[in-house]
This record gives sequence, C-alpha cells and structure tokens, in this order.
Amino acid sequence: MKKLRFAIAGATGAVGTEILRLLEARSLPVETVRPLASERSVGASVRFRGEDVPVSVLGRDSFDGVDVALFSCGASLSREYAPAAVGAGAVVVDNSSAFRVDPAVPLVVPEINADALEGHRGIVANPNCTTIVTLMAVAPLAAVAGISSMRVASYQAASGAGARAMAELTSQTADVLAGREATPVEFDQPIAFNVIPAIGSFRDDGTTTEERKLTDESRRILGRPDLRVSAVCVRVPVLRAHCAAVWLETERPLTPERAREVLAAAPGVKVVDEPARLAYPMPISAAGRSEVEVGRIRADESDSGPGSGMGLTFFVAGDQLLKGAALNAVQIAERLFS
Amino acid sequence: MKKLRFAIAGATGAVGTEILRLLEARSLPVETVRPLASERSVGASVRFRGEDVPVSVLGRDSFDGVDVALFSCGASLSREYAPAAVGAGAVVVDNSSAFRVDPAVPLVVPEINADALEGHRGIVANPNCTTIVTLMAVAPLAAVAGISSMRVASYQAASGAGARAMAELTSQTADVLAGREATPVEFDQPIAFNVIPAIGSFRDDGTTTEERKLTDESRRILGRPDLRVSAVCVRVPVLRAHCAAVWLETERPLTPERAREVLAAAPGVKVVDEPARLAYPMPISAAGRSEVEVGRIRADESDSGPGSGMGLTFFVAGDQLLKGAALNAVQIAERLFS
Repeated sequence: MKKLRFAIAGATGAVGTEILRLLEARSLPVETVRPLASERSVGASVRFRGEDVPVSVLGRDSFDGVDVALFSCGASLSREYAPAAVGAGAVVVDNSSAFRVDPAVPLVVPEINADALEGHRGIVANPNCTTIVTLMAVAPLAAVAGISSMRVASYQAASGAGARAMAELTSQTADVLAGREATPVEFDQPIAFNVIPAIGSFRDDGTTTEERKLTDESRRILGRPDLRVSAVCVRVPVLRAHCAAVWLETERPLTPERAREVLAAAPGVKVVDEPARLAYPMPISAAGRSEVEVGRIRADESDSGPGSGMGLTFFVAGDQLLKGAALNAVQIAERLFS
Repeated sequence: MKKLRFAIAGATGAVGTEILRLLEARSLPVETVRPLASERSVGASVRFRGEDVPVSVLGRDSFDGVDVALFSCGASLSREYAPAAVGAGAVVVDNSSAFRVDPAVPLVVPEINADALEGHRGIVANPNCTTIVTLMAVAPLAAVAGISSMRVASYQAASGAGARAMAELTSQTADVLAGREATPVEFDQPIAFNVIPAIGSFRDDGTTTEERKLTDESRRILGRPDLRVSAVCVRVPVLRAHCAAVWLETERPLTPERAREVLAAAPGVKVVDEPARLAYPMPISAAGRSEVEVGRIRADESDSGPGSGMGLTFFVAGDQLLKGAALNAVQIAERLFS
C-alpha cells in the first residue's frame, strides 16, 4: 500500500496528541506527519516515532502533498481551513461540529455506518464524543430489536473541553483541597468536587448545544431521522472518560441476556457486567482503552408496557479522547485508505 | 410548649453533626441533648450551644427520660436499640433503612406526606437521601398532573456513605494528584476522579439496594404502590450534595412553564432554571442549603406521545446531609411536637 502523508491540525491539543500515538501504534502506513497548530504553538514540536517534529502554523498553504488531514482544532478553524485541505487533494477527517449536520458530509462511526463513507466529497465528520460512546452500545441493540426512543443522562469528563480544561480540573481540585477558592476559566462554573448540568451553550428551546448534538447526530448515524431522543448532558470531575446512563424503548422484545450476547459480539464493545465481581463500566477502567465498556444491563422497570420486554437500561463508559475522538478519526482514515 | 429532651444516636457522624447544628438553629424547644455513639467514640464530646457535651456509649439504657431519639448510626444498630428507646417512652426518628419497608412504620417527607405520621407507634422512618431529594421535586408535579412512571439517573455525593467516606474522597484525591495510588476503603472502587455506577450491594435481579430503595420508598411516600420506576444510582466525586436527572411520564399534560410555577410554589423547593444567567442546580450551590434546587425543566422529547405534553425532564440538587437526612429528621420531630 502507498505510504500516506498526514497533516494533524491541532497537533498539540489533547486529541491531536492521541492521534499521533495512534498513528505510531496502528496499521496505517505513515510516510510523514505534519503537525499544525495556532500561532500560540510557534516553536513547539511534537514527538513522533522518537523524533521531535516542529509544529507549523495552520494556514491555507499547509496541505501541499498531504493525503489525509485530521482536524481537531475547533469548528471555526475547521470551517476556515478544511476546504483548503480538500482543494490541495487531501481527505479531511474533522473532529469538530463544523460539518456534522451538512448532508453532503458523511458523519461516521466505522463500526456502525462505514457505508456512509462512499461518495464522500473530501470531508468526513467525526461525531460528538458522547454520541460515539453512547451509540457504540445502542447501535448493535437497535440492529437486532429496533429502537423507538432513547433517553440519556451523561457523566462527561473534562477532556471533552480540551487539554486546558483537564489541567483546570486538576489545578482547581488542588486549590480547593488547599482551601483556596475555585476560579473557573475553561468551564462556566467550578468543576472541582462539583457537577455541572450544562455543556456547550444554551439554545432558545432550553436544551444545550451538546444535548442537541447527541439528538441530531444519533439520528443521522443510526439513519433514523424520527428517533425520539431526550438527553441531559452533565459535566463531572473526571479526567478523560465519558459515561452515560441510557434507557431504550425497543420495537421488538429484547431481554437483558440477549442484549448482553449482542453486545459481547459487537466490535469495539466490551461487556463489563458482573455484579458478583463488582464489575461495571467506570471512567478509571475505560480510560486509555479502545473499547467502550457496557454494563448494568437490565430491563427498564418503568417501560410503558411493563413485562413487555421492550425497555432496556444500561451504563456505558468510553475514553473520550480515544473512541470519543482520536481513535474514531483514525479508524475513519483506515477505512478510507485500507 | 414543653421543653424536649433529645438523644442523638450517631452524634459524632456526618448526619449527627448536622442534627446538632439544626437543633441549635431551629424552633424546637430543646431542654437537653444526649449524644450517643459506639465504643469507638468513648471519651469524645460534641459541641452544643457553646458547650462540650460528653458522648455516651449507645445501649439499651441510653433512653431514660428521653422524649425524642434521632438515630443515624446504621440499620443494624437501629434494629437493636430503637425498640429500647420506644420502650423507654421516646419517639424515634430513624435515618437508616431498618424500618422503611415496615408497613407499621410511617416513612415521611413532611412536605409530602406528613399525614402518614398519624397513628405512629413510636418509630418514624426517615427516607433514603436520594429518594427525598428526588421526590421534593416529583411530588408537587405528581399532585397536579399525576405520574405514571419515573426514570432517575443519580449523581450521588460521598456524604451518603458517611463522614469517613467524605474524608476518603478528599485524601484519595490528594493522593492521586500527588501521583500516589488510590486505595479504596469505604468505597468498593476508587472515587477520586471516577464515577461508580453501583451504590449499596447488588440484589439477585441486578439492581442495587440503593436503586431498590428509590423505587420502593418513592411508591410508599407518594402512595402509589403501582408506580413504574427505573433508577440508575451512581456515585460521583462530590462531597455532600446529591443530584439526579429525572424523567416523568405524567397522566395529564404538564408544560414546563406550569411545572416551573408549581415548583416555585412548593415548600422546600427552589427553582434554579435561568439558562441566560447560567443558573441551574449544582452540588456547590445546593450544599449547606435547606432547599432542594430544581432546574433544566423541559418537555421530554422522547416521550411516547411526542407533543402530548405528558413527558417532563428536569435536574435536581439537594444537600444530602440536610434535606436528605438531618433536616428531614428534625422536620419530622417538629411536626410531631409542634
């Protein structure tokens, strides 16, 4: 296979760093990586295969000779520079929300809807992190039993807001332990020893942009524009793995035992559901792992037809920086170039 | 009014400490307090009205001349000593799970079902903390629109597991920040920068004892033995306020605007629901406050009849040690002796 030349826009960020590690470790043939970042990172370098590679400033001329451009630097920079990358002949995998609702841009979780990659026009969107982690468990169940509704309460890590937000969680926690005041910068509220039931910004209808992403992107990825979704997205003082409590109403009966079988066979999913061993999904066990953990799988005792077997509840945990972002983006590139 | 003599079983614990502060601050006429604890606390004393009151060892002879015995020392000690307190002529308000499912013992949240206190036989049970915090918002809505189901994903603080669990959260967090290993003692898993989707112990049906309490106690307090409830109870690294994301299916249409009005008029509830001001319920704002905060009040976009107006979602936060435990117990005593 032809060796590939990569550009990594946002190479010094939390997701960019993980992308570099994954390109070192996984199977795609990498000829070169070109780390790109804002002017703030001028003079910085990143490690790749034991060498220091200097970071260049992201610009319209950054993509000459690039085969694959992986963007993780926020929606406005993606909107500004992704078209230039495509113009230079690169395929863009964009980790921001810039193109996710554009019907001309595939929104892809490879285990779920890799077929949507066909006919792409140069840009592929990487979904929202909570959406990916949640759907990794939902999609295999939807495939066997159909789903009519999904309710999600999330427990989202600081990493979803970037590397500086992760640093704020640890430094602010140290401040609070030392009796100093918590002074939020990256978050709207103190995050140390707190829970913030609002992620992103508020929309006129009272939902947040994060909750809207979970709804709209789930519908697109599952190919179910009518899917009924209700989400409450909540930040918790955790570093890098997202969790979610999920309730599904299914179209056909689905027992917890059958759901466990289906999920055990699903790629990228690890069933962690052994109460006797105190085994269930958690941020500390999901962090650093490729698989999304699923457990606490039970019948929904509140479903509208109790005993109907049409309601299920479970808990998921997945590394926000890996499957929620960098790994999914690299997997998309693998599908495109393998 | 006759002055009352109190015994506080578990006076050195997290809840006992709050009970002492509330007895100092609130309106009940206190003649004496007799702090009781296990032999571990021999030699200790507690502060009450500026004086050090020595702690006695809890025993069958601890209750002579006591009018009100407030128990917060775990279910097994309540089972062992509450009958002795009743035998000595005291009324017991028990904060443990020992008597909550006993049909002869009222299970009371004063704002919701104070009428259940009539005809008590000496023991009144204080409900589970998450149940109290959740129902403070649910009950007023159920009263105006009826409810047919309730789904709850909780975000529970360390205080629910006691004072040593709170100390473990802070000391373990300091350990992790210093690069030392987290070594859980009070919790089954590390709690620093983690989320644990299991509270209490597991039952054969895959639910936890905490989830079962939320279901069974909600049914009793609301007087709805058939209420459909599904709960996922999750520990988060927060010190002393519990939160919950709640979905209700109502029997009659209930708009978010009407729900907000109803909750604004409900005693003990504070509506905190102004997105434009970034105002929503949080542990750091609910901690130390008597009221339970309710916000993020919205129509449930996943309800089974979308547009029916029969589904609602919201987020609550309440101080676990106050309304979730000590305050509710003291309020019960106030109802009994005012």
